[in-house]
Amino acid sequence: MFPAAPMAGYDRAITIFSPEGRLYQVEYAYEAVKRGMTALGVKASDGVVLAVEKRSASPLVEGTEKIKKIDDHVGVAFAGLFGDARVLIDQARIYAQTHRLIYGEPIPIELLVKRICDIKQMYTQHGGVRPFGVAFLFAGIDRKGSHLIQTDPGGTYLRCKARAIGAGAQKAIDLFTKEYREDIKIEEAVMLALRGLREAMEEGFSAENIELAKIDIYDKTFKIFTMSEVRELISKL
Amino acid sequence: MFPAAPMAGYDRAITIFSPEGRLYQVEYAYEAVKRGMTALGVKASDGVVLAVEKRSASPLVEGTEKIKKIDDHVGVAFAGLFGDARVLIDQARIYAQTHRLIYGEPIPIELLVKRICDIKQMYTQHGGVRPFGVAFLFAGIDRKGSHLIQTDPGGTYLRCKARAIGAGAQKAIDLFTKEYREDIKIEEAVMLALRGLREAMEEGFSAENIELAKIDIYDKTFKIFTMSEVRELISKL
Amino acid sequence: MFPAAPMAGYDRAITIFSPEGRLYQVEYAYEAVKRGMTALGVKASDGVVLAVEKRSASPLVEGTEKIKKIDDHVGVAFAGLFGDARVLIDQARIYAQTHRLIYGEPIPIELLVKRICDIKQMYTQHGGVRPFGVAFLFAGIDRKGSHLIQTDPGGTYLRCKARAIGAGAQKAIDLFTKEYREDIKIEEAVMLALRGLREAMEEGFSAENIELAKIDIYDKTFKIFTMSEVRELISKL
Amino acid sequence: MFPAAPMAGYDRAITIFSPEGRLYQVEYAYEAVKRGMTALGVKASDGVVLAVEKRSASPLVEGTEKIKKIDDHVGVAFAGLFGDARVLIDQARIYAQTHRLIYGEPIPIELLVKRICDIKQMYTQHGGVRPFGVAFLFAGIDRKGSHLIQTDPGGTYLRCKARAIGAGAQKAIDLFTKEYREDIKIEEAVMLALRGLREAMEEGFSAENIELAKIDIYDKTFKIFTMSEVRELISKL
Amino acid sequence: MFPAAPMAGYDRAITIFSPEGRLYQVEYAYEAVKRGMTALGVKASDGVVLAVEKRSASPLVEGTEKIKKIDDHVGVAFAGLFGDARVLIDQARIYAQTHRLIYGEPIPIELLVKRICDIKQMYTQHGGVRPFGVAFLFAGIDRKGSHLIQTDPGGTYLRCKARAIGAGAQKAIDLFTKEYREDIKIEEAVMLALRGLREAMEEGFSAENIELAKIDIYDKTFKIFTMSEVRELISKL
Amino acid sequence: MFPAAPMAGYDRAITIFSPEGRLYQVEYAYEAVKRGMTALGVKASDGVVLAVEKRSASPLVEGTEKIKKIDDHVGVAFAGLFGDARVLIDQARIYAQTHRLIYGEPIPIELLVKRICDIKQMYTQHGGVRPFGVAFLFAGIDRKGSHLIQTDPGGTYLRCKARAIGAGAQKAIDLFTKEYREDIKIEEAVMLALRGLREAMEEGFSAENIELAKIDIYDKTFKIFTMSEVRELISKL
Amino acid sequence: MFPAAPMAGYDRAITIFSPEGRLYQVEYAYEAVKRGMTALGVKASDGVVLAVEKRSASPLVEGTEKIKKIDDHVGVAFAGLFGDARVLIDQARIYAQTHRLIYGEPIPIELLVKRICDIKQMYTQHGGVRPFGVAFLFAGIDRKGSHLIQTDPGGTYLRCKARAIGAGAQKAIDLFTKEYREDIKIEEAVMLALRGLREAMEEGFSAENIELAKIDIYDKTFKIFTMSEVRELISKL
Repeated sequence: MFPAAPMAGYDRAITIFSPEGRLYQVEYAYEAVKRGMTALGVKASDGVVLAVEKRSASPLVEGTEKIKKIDDHVGVAFAGLFGDARVLIDQARIYAQTHRLIYGEPIPIELLVKRICDIKQMYTQHGGVRPFGVAFLFAGIDRKGSHLIQTDPGGTYLRCKARAIGAGAQKAIDLFTKEYREDIKIEEAVMLALRGLREAMEEGFSAENIELAKIDIYDKTFKIFTMSEVRELISKL
Repeated sequence: MFPAAPMAGYDRAITIFSPEGRLYQVEYAYEAVKRGMTALGVKASDGVVLAVEKRSASPLVEGTEKIKKIDDHVGVAFAGLFGDARVLIDQARIYAQTHRLIYGEPIPIELLVKRICDIKQMYTQHGGVRPFGVAFLFAGIDRKGSHLIQTDPGGTYLRCKARAIGAGAQKAIDLFTKEYREDIKIEEAVMLALRGLREAMEEGFSAENIELAKIDIYDKTFKIFTMSEVRELISKL
Repeated sequence: MFPAAPMAGYDRAITIFSPEGRLYQVEYAYEAVKRGMTALGVKASDGVVLAVEKRSASPLVEGTEKIKKIDDHVGVAFAGLFGDARVLIDQARIYAQTHRLIYGEPIPIELLVKRICDIKQMYTQHGGVRPFGVAFLFAGIDRKGSHLIQTDPGGTYLRCKARAIGAGAQKAIDLFTKEYREDIKIEEAVMLALRGLREAMEEGFSAENIELAKIDIYDKTFKIFTMSEVRELISKL
Repeated sequence: MFPAAPMAGYDRAITIFSPEGRLYQVEYAYEAVKRGMTALGVKASDGVVLAVEKRSASPLVEGTEKIKKIDDHVGVAFAGLFGDARVLIDQARIYAQTHRLIYGEPIPIELLVKRICDIKQMYTQHGGVRPFGVAFLFAGIDRKGSHLIQTDPGGTYLRCKARAIGAGAQKAIDLFTKEYREDIKIEEAVMLALRGLREAMEEGFSAENIELAKIDIYDKTFKIFTMSEVRELISKL
Repeated sequence: MFPAAPMAGYDRAITIFSPEGRLYQVEYAYEAVKRGMTALGVKASDGVVLAVEKRSASPLVEGTEKIKKIDDHVGVAFAGLFGDARVLIDQARIYAQTHRLIYGEPIPIELLVKRICDIKQMYTQHGGVRPFGVAFLFAGIDRKGSHLIQTDPGGTYLRCKARAIGAGAQKAIDLFTKEYREDIKIEEAVMLALRGLREAMEEGFSAENIELAKIDIYDKTFKIFTMSEVRELISKL
Repeated sequence: MFPAAPMAGYDRAITIFSPEGRLYQVEYAYEAVKRGMTALGVKASDGVVLAVEKRSASPLVEGTEKIKKIDDHVGVAFAGLFGDARVLIDQARIYAQTHRLIYGEPIPIELLVKRICDIKQMYTQHGGVRPFGVAFLFAGIDRKGSHLIQTDPGGTYLRCKARAIGAGAQKAIDLFTKEYREDIKIEEAVMLALRGLREAMEEGFSAENIELAKIDIYDKTFKIFTMSEVRELISKL
Repeated sequence: MFPAAPMAGYDRAITIFSPEGRLYQVEYAYEAVKRGMTALGVKASDGVVLAVEKRSASPLVEGTEKIKKIDDHVGVAFAGLFGDARVLIDQARIYAQTHRLIYGEPIPIELLVKRICDIKQMYTQHGGVRPFGVAFLFAGIDRKGSHLIQTDPGGTYLRCKARAIGAGAQKAIDLFTKEYREDIKIEEAVMLALRGLREAMEEGFSAENIELAKIDIYDKTFKIFTMSEVRELISKL
């Protein structure tokens, strides 16, 4: 713990720049993401898949749901602090509903992501708050097509083809790097996502311990799979 | 006390991330929960049971009640700081009443829990406050069935089958892990809860020193047992 | 004074958790109570008694009154900082009057105590303030019967049968532990309270240096004894 | 100055409790009182006397007046910071005038003192301010009789028979302890006050360097003596 | 990390002056710019060109767009924190739209830049915030002609002929210093910009990894090149 | 500079008491006064004189005026920070004008001084500000006669016969102590003030480097002497 | 960097007094002025001249304009932080326009300067902000004649005959001290200003790298010279 002392000046009170131009609090918040359970997404030519690990610490406790529907055409998976995630997911739902009400159409995915990132950025620049310790993978379909977008605690977002966040992210990314093709179809993408998650989870890969969702260009509706559907899909692996 | 010095930077002013992405103030608040007297819950196939230790430090002082009714269909047990718990319980009652008034129906248990967790989360991210040093076990029944949900100081909640919090939690959990079955009936669940509490309390297990409550799917009403009822139940153990 | 240095991080700015989950500022505030002059209370089967030490530092200065009437049916004794106590007593009187005005009946004792504890709790969780350095013993009678309730600086309260706070509390509690019976009558309770105070005060036990008050179920009115009444009672000891 | 370092944590930012339950900032403010010039008061059976030292640092500068009239029936003497005193004296005058306006009668002395102490207490519990570095001796007459009340920087007040504050307080108190009688008449009390002040001031006791005021039950009016009246009284000592 | 300790006083809480009259937080924020990917601009006699590196960390992630259109007649490239940039770009778009609405004409480029710099300056002088960790290159055309203006984190702006910011800035500037001529035409400027970017990027210079935009005096419209257009231009290098 | 370290706790954030009951920030502010150029005043039996040093650092820069008229019947001289003085002088002029407007008569001098001292006191007790680094000598005539009053940074004021503040104050005070008489006439007082200033200024005593003003009971108007008038008066010394 | 440590207490959070009565933050802000490029002014018997160095760091970047017109009858030159200067110049323009609108006449120069200094002073006394790191030379003509006034970061202003600020100030002041005469005419003053600037700039003295402005009593209009006019004037040196 001793090495913590000299950098003591950069992690107090408000989020400020270190002499190297880094924002330590944002980087530390990202550590909370890295400690979270793995969440991943794969964009197919005709849809997007999300999959997360929701292992429970005990058989007597249900794993926390980590995939949430925001609106009919968009959902989200997250890694990091559950409480922080919930605040932003509630906000995302409000943005989506408000957009529908005012403009009479589903909110464009990137606009939704920007709004969430604006909140995240604000929490990295103003005093009296800490950054959000959570990263999201948004999956949705709008007029411009299908989207898989990652946000990080600093308010940055990245448009992705296949992506994983959380403790097992690197193993899943390694698999995606080898096997992902842009012309992948949604059914294959589901299988690739499951395989990525199997790599990322060191143990306990089973229908009880994961969540799976998809949205495709045919019915444009974000759908979370039931446990029996997941079980069936796993059996095909 | 000396090892406290190097991490001095992470526990001041506001709740901020440590370099490992941890929120020390939230973890320290959880220590307040661990020092509290044991509270536990068991979900049966037809109801939910709550039981708490309410031992008093002196025969001249009554033990503090740690099970509270929120609304007809939901109650709560807690471990941790009494003052902090009371603030949130008052808030929960207001949410429940407001929901009845506006929507003409009992508040869904998970929605109620989310509202309380939103308050808890806010106290972990904004300056000028400290987190709540209390964990809850909510027990209730709504349209979706019966619920046993734990909240922690960080604003996270967990859906549970059988759960214990506070100083003797581990002993009760060990018992539950061995003996809990999902098809347990409410009468058996009451007995299992009492046995769990007997394990958790090192001494003084008696009707005077515990509280017991249940809610079942037959009358859907949260009911705190009288001391003589508890005494009778204990005699059957 | 040297051992104060390592824990320097836990007693600044706002009241925060120590790594063991303790709130040092609240504990330090309790030290202010422990340094205060003794206050005690005894609940009889038909009433409640309060007694306090109000010794003066000099014969040229009157001792500060430490028993205050809140409303006809409830009074309070305190140990700790006089200025802090006054703020909360004023508030208690306002709550009591407001309740009478709105509901047309005396405020229930426990409700009154909860309101005062809500204020106390707030001062332990928000920045820019320190906790109240005072503990109270409320004595009153309402529809549910007679009450003796202690509050502490953290916003916790305890329903008591016989209780003492302040510098000499332990000696009085030792006496109560030996001699208190639940079927005690109010006249005996007055004598037990005086004996407890005589134990607690190391010197100077006399009608000039103490205050005594009672409320019983016959006239349900909080009554502070005059000095001559106290003198007469002491003579009977 | 070195011993100041270890207790550095208790005297910054806001007024907080030390581990022993003390409020250092309030105690330090009291030091400002102890460094002030002596002020004293004597309560007679038929009135109250105030006397203060108002020595000037230079013959070219007039000593600052330290006795102020609040209303016809009440005045005040102070020791400590002049600027702080003035703020509270202005406030006391406003309270007194407002009371007359609303209730059509002079403000009760103890009520007036409580209001001033409420302000003082507030400055010991909230952040962003320091306590008032001043103590007062209020002297007045109302329906309940004559009053001599001392307030200190923490918001506590004491009902007194004879009292002194400031640098020479102990010497005056020693005299009062020996010679004060409760049946003293106002003329004797004036003489006792002057003798007390002569003891307290190490040098320079003369009509130019002191102020003297009284209020008695005959005309119930707070009266500050002129310098020639003081000179005449001193000549009688 | 040890050398950080002595200057610890200059980088906390708010942005304050060091003894040498420097604002460290502003300088540290500029380090965030220097760590960003290269962005550059070249002003021709008949227009302005912007080019940026938008390399992605992974083939599965699209590079973040770093050239944004503000209004028809003005666009911007940036280096530094994406989240910070987005906040200011949104603000710039609002200023531009508001100006059009109120004055019925496009906002003058320098006025737009001043407004953005006013925000940046405010974040260097007031407490509770950190400076923006981003530098911009604004390119636009208004009544006064064509403009290439750089802003830095402190709120300063510079009118430029050819300029580069970010990690590879110096290499591009070296090239510009040798080859830039004021009478350069827009087509040549595009080529010079591409060559500058090729110098600045150590590897990966390709149409996929860069963005290119221009505005010229002929149609006065800010235009971002498509990837195939960029590919074609690169092939001409 | 080393001895500054142990008292580091008493001069930060807000103005707080040191263990000896001193307000260091107020004392440090007084140091700013002591570093200022000398200002002095002499009260005659029939008027008041003010004189100040206004030497310039360079022949190319005019000395700053340090005597200001507040209203027809009152003026002020100051030593300390020019910027701080200006803020309070502006405020004094507003008080004086407002008083004339509301009450139809010139503001009493002591009331004016109290208002300025109330502002000064407030800046010594509340957080987020520093005390004013300036002392004033007010000279004026009202119904009660002529007044020479000094204010200091802490909000205290002193009624004076002859007084000097600033770097050379002691030398002027020494002269006044020897030569001042209460029956001095205004013409003599002018000469005494000039002699005092000559003592206080180590060099450069001349009409160019000083300011002189008076107010007498004959025309009751504050008058600043022209440079030629000052030159003539100096020639008579 | 080591010597910075002991004075660490005086340069944090808000601008406070050091034990010697100095405001370090204001002095450090003045260092920012001293690091700025030279700005100077010369007052003639019939007008005022301003001249500044505006050298650019690179041939590809235009030097920043450092002379700004505030209103027809007044302009300003500055040394220090560009962003800070711009905020105050915008404010000065608003004051000037508002004055014209309300009073129907040009704002008096000294009144304008006072307003700007009032803002500067406020930023040296209140928490949560830092002082402005900029000094100005205001040049203008009003009913009282022509004015050359310098303001510094602390809110002080000086009426000057000839003055220079910034990195090369001393060299220019040395020249002015030798050669300035009060009866100088505006044409000579222009030449003296140019010679002063040539002394102050170590290299690069040329029409491209300087700005020059004047206002005279004949047309009373602040005029910034064009580059060719400057070139011609330089050729006459």
